[in-house]
Amino acid sequence: MLLLELLLVFQYILGITATILLPITPTKGGVVPLPQKSETYRDFFVIRPSVFRFKVTGYSCSILDEATIRYWILISESFSYFDLEKKSQLHKKIWKENVNYLGLLDSLSVHLENDCTNDEMPHLHMNENYTIQLDQTQQVIRSSSVWGILRGLETFSQLIYKADDTYTLIVNSTKITDFPRFSHRGLLLDTARHFIPMRLILKTLDAMSFNKLNVFHWHIVDDQSFPYKSSKFPDLSDKGAYHPEAAVYNPEDVEKVISYARKRGIRVVVEFDTPGHTLSWGNGIKNILTECVGIADKFGPMDPSKPKLYQFLNDFFQEISEVFPERYVHLGGDEVPFDCWESNPNISQFMKSLNLTDYSDLEGYYINKLIDLVTKKKLNSIVWEEVFDNGVELSDSTIVHVWKGDFNTTLYKVTEARKKALLSSCWYLDHLGGVQDWINYYRCDPYDFSGSDEQKNLILGGEACMWSEAVNEYNVMSRVWPRACAAAEKLWSSITPRDNTTITPAQIENMGSRLEEHTCRMNRRGIEAEPPNWPSYCY
Amino acid sequence: MLLLELLLVFQYILGITATILLPITPTKGGVVPLPQKSETYRDFFVIRPSVFRFKVTGYSCSILDEATIRYWILISESFSYFDLEKKSQLHKKIWKENVNYLGLLDSLSVHLENDCTNDEMPHLHMNENYTIQLDQTQQVIRSSSVWGILRGLETFSQLIYKADDTYTLIVNSTKITDFPRFSHRGLLLDTARHFIPMRLILKTLDAMSFNKLNVFHWHIVDDQSFPYKSSKFPDLSDKGAYHPEAAVYNPEDVEKVISYARKRGIRVVVEFDTPGHTLSWGNGIKNILTECVGIADKFGPMDPSKPKLYQFLNDFFQEISEVFPERYVHLGGDEVPFDCWESNPNISQFMKSLNLTDYSDLEGYYINKLIDLVTKKKLNSIVWEEVFDNGVELSDSTIVHVWKGDFNTTLYKVTEARKKALLSSCWYLDHLGGVQDWINYYRCDPYDFSGSDEQKNLILGGEACMWSEAVNEYNVMSRVWPRACAAAEKLWSSITPRDNTTITPAQIENMGSRLEEHTCRMNRRGIEAEPPNWPSYCY
Repeated sequence: MLLLELLLVFQYILGITATILLPITPTKGGVVPLPQKSETYRDFFVIRPSVFRFKVTGYSCSILDEATIRYWILISESFSYFDLEKKSQLHKKIWKENVNYLGLLDSLSVHLENDCTNDEMPHLHMNENYTIQLDQTQQVIRSSSVWGILRGLETFSQLIYKADDTYTLIVNSTKITDFPRFSHRGLLLDTARHFIPMRLILKTLDAMSFNKLNVFHWHIVDDQSFPYKSSKFPDLSDKGAYHPEAAVYNPEDVEKVISYARKRGIRVVVEFDTPGHTLSWGNGIKNILTECVGIADKFGPMDPSKPKLYQFLNDFFQEISEVFPERYVHLGGDEVPFDCWESNPNISQFMKSLNLTDYSDLEGYYINKLIDLVTKKKLNSIVWEEVFDNGVELSDSTIVHVWKGDFNTTLYKVTEARKKALLSSCWYLDHLGGVQDWINYYRCDPYDFSGSDEQKNLILGGEACMWSEAVNEYNVMSRVWPRACAAAEKLWSSITPRDNTTITPAQIENMGSRLEEHTCRMNRRGIEAEPPNWPSYCY
Repeated sequence: MLLLELLLVFQYILGITATILLPITPTKGGVVPLPQKSETYRDFFVIRPSVFRFKVTGYSCSILDEATIRYWILISESFSYFDLEKKSQLHKKIWKENVNYLGLLDSLSVHLENDCTNDEMPHLHMNENYTIQLDQTQQVIRSSSVWGILRGLETFSQLIYKADDTYTLIVNSTKITDFPRFSHRGLLLDTARHFIPMRLILKTLDAMSFNKLNVFHWHIVDDQSFPYKSSKFPDLSDKGAYHPEAAVYNPEDVEKVISYARKRGIRVVVEFDTPGHTLSWGNGIKNILTECVGIADKFGPMDPSKPKLYQFLNDFFQEISEVFPERYVHLGGDEVPFDCWESNPNISQFMKSLNLTDYSDLEGYYINKLIDLVTKKKLNSIVWEEVFDNGVELSDSTIVHVWKGDFNTTLYKVTEARKKALLSSCWYLDHLGGVQDWINYYRCDPYDFSGSDEQKNLILGGEACMWSEAVNEYNVMSRVWPRACAAAEKLWSSITPRDNTTITPAQIENMGSRLEEHTCRMNRRGIEAEPPNWPSYCY
């Protein structure tokens, strides 16, 4: 009774979704994101979860030890361990008689080739390469870095599936050589428009690790609320959060997020967006926002004419540089409205004294001072594209985050100016495109612009963005997942040749089948993902 | 950083959402759906949840007794009972000194004027009228029927709110005279495209009662799966469900749904849609579907040429009439494809023998036989509009369910032919309209056609429809709520005069404010509703 045809016609006309796939057959042991190089054979092993263990044969450290336990639990639990054990007794003979049966896989070697005891944090240039060899001679995940081991464990866990008509866990003989296409593969979560409880941030990090995303971009504050509890400036959240106790992230919470993310090879890049999007800051700290004169809004962006502002920012970002081990901080810089600045005579006076005629120059002045200030704290900056558009002189370490519509042109310009770039324009998860709109995200590619190879090398990756105007704790998980998986795959998996950014129907169908299995897999692992495709059932 | 302007412009162009409201101030003690006649005064009572009780002063029965306990728990729990009690000690003086303070409301009379011990089931013509008087002389909910008492308890529970700056529960002096605009106010839930677990069906019934919806239209089976476990024909679900054990509704489940719904004044109208949408039936019962010849699909709709089919339907609906106490059954009749019938020579032969030239006549032949068959079991029928469109002769007790786009014309035609009608066309919850799309649902009105008063009296109400192609257990609650509240209000609350079906901006704003509070209220009561509007926080 769904108005199926009408809906499809409607979507075709709007160009919202150009392909609808029906029916989708889920894969068995399909991996998301797709590994770079993978060979799968008919031969298979049988896994008994009660017996199976990871065997650490190389270096180890706490991240690796915890990860093997985590994945052992995931594998066991998600396939209803006891039930399988019991029932498999009845079916023993079926697989033993199969010509492709290679034997029982009672352990898998996890072989890290280098020491990982130096308490390393995940970082932009971390090595995530790994290999998996699963055949009669060897059963091993190898990597030269602990981050690669994490990615390999995730892939291995996805290779396992339940055999048809039996209650047996199967893994096919497989060879995989894998590495990421881009080094920055992020998910932005806005926790300011609606407060998102800690429980769901940790679940989000889980789901990110299931999709090999490695940057949690925490858009932690905005106009509407300031849930970050600052030790130096407690008034910021006491007066700027939706609730001073129930809707804040305490220092312990932030520490927990960082440590939980680290164990999954995920960087926590926090964003304190200024000089716009800062109304909530003004509740706790007086005299840092511009007072508007004769217009409806009482306050506008930060007031760059006030020396006190820079002292405050210096102290505030000092704290941030100490709380967050990550060496990149997102400074925002988007959507600065000029009407309030225009209305304020002190601002005019200040601009005159600096010989600034343009409000975008004033914005540039502010951002430059801010970048200088955080650079002294050994923090690198990420800024939204407006900062670049406004002609602010940026150091080569600053990354320009592209989010507006005509991203192809912007990526060209940014990389032409030899700046590093991230793409988010086409991965806004708050834009609903109807059924199977993951396909829209899947069609988007960060190399989809006419730059030189040198320019393309400046693209560090991108981020799917979950702005939270219309999501709260009850729909945020199902809004992000599995739609963000499409972006995750584009950021991890290579295209060949790299200028051929057009996705074929066969590639979409292939992803559709893997995504169907992957969504059920995420559901089993406690992620409240919505259906990626059409009517279906997670067996 | 949301592309706010772009999004709005986009939505304006598409006509998806014509009004965006910003900002929304939630009401305090606002009621959804809006009562017919309501006066609220500044005077207020204070409620102490640990002390407060309902006092049954008239007739009583199990439905009423259970409801008073349920609402007592709802009121206590949802306002964090103990916390309030403790903290209110500190604030006692504040409200005691308020000039509008009327005193403590330690009990509310619940006065049912008629006996309710006859084990009545909710039905199409049940009386849901009630009054609330809350002033210094009386504090009472009155009704002549237990169903009215249920609606009154819901309204009373919504009148209570937490006072500003104190930890006190407040209810204002209020006079309400309330009754429903339409007698059939439904929510359709499709449990066939994705299996929806029992837990969520019960939660859905809870949420329906919070919105005074009174018909759970259970679209229980469809092409994709047959989760209804039949006692007479167990093969239907054994072979037709997604899973014969994990994805079925057992007889005990169905009984539970009916009894849970009854206690909340909700009818359970089950739909067994035929002759189309029946692929899953064919797995369990052989030789009832049309075998297609030379076309891609192997099977088509039910095969009306087979006498065995009617014997099966007779036995099957005998069971249904015994399992479901409700005297209306939904027989479907929508979207019957004719290509398979056309391809089958037996069908052609059969039509010839009956002098039928048109496939819609064949469909009419089938549906007529089906309606006759269920009528003999003392069941009334609801059918989708195609049955009327195809010119099938319908008895006056049959209800035509309008779901296609041009509903104004269809409602006119149906009521002109003196048939009763239900509207769903504009309340399809699977159609996503972007931010605040509840406004679209709110603009829709079942009287929005140019019929006479007599014709309008034939409109029994309508239903919001949650088709489950794109929802599973993880997003169904947040997809339905609070969007269905807009339809619920249109179906309960009157418009004056009744031909004036245009909603004003002020009415939308008023609903927006109540919906903001109501969504938080549903959240507190365990309903995973998404935000109705923009950035917000449930205090």
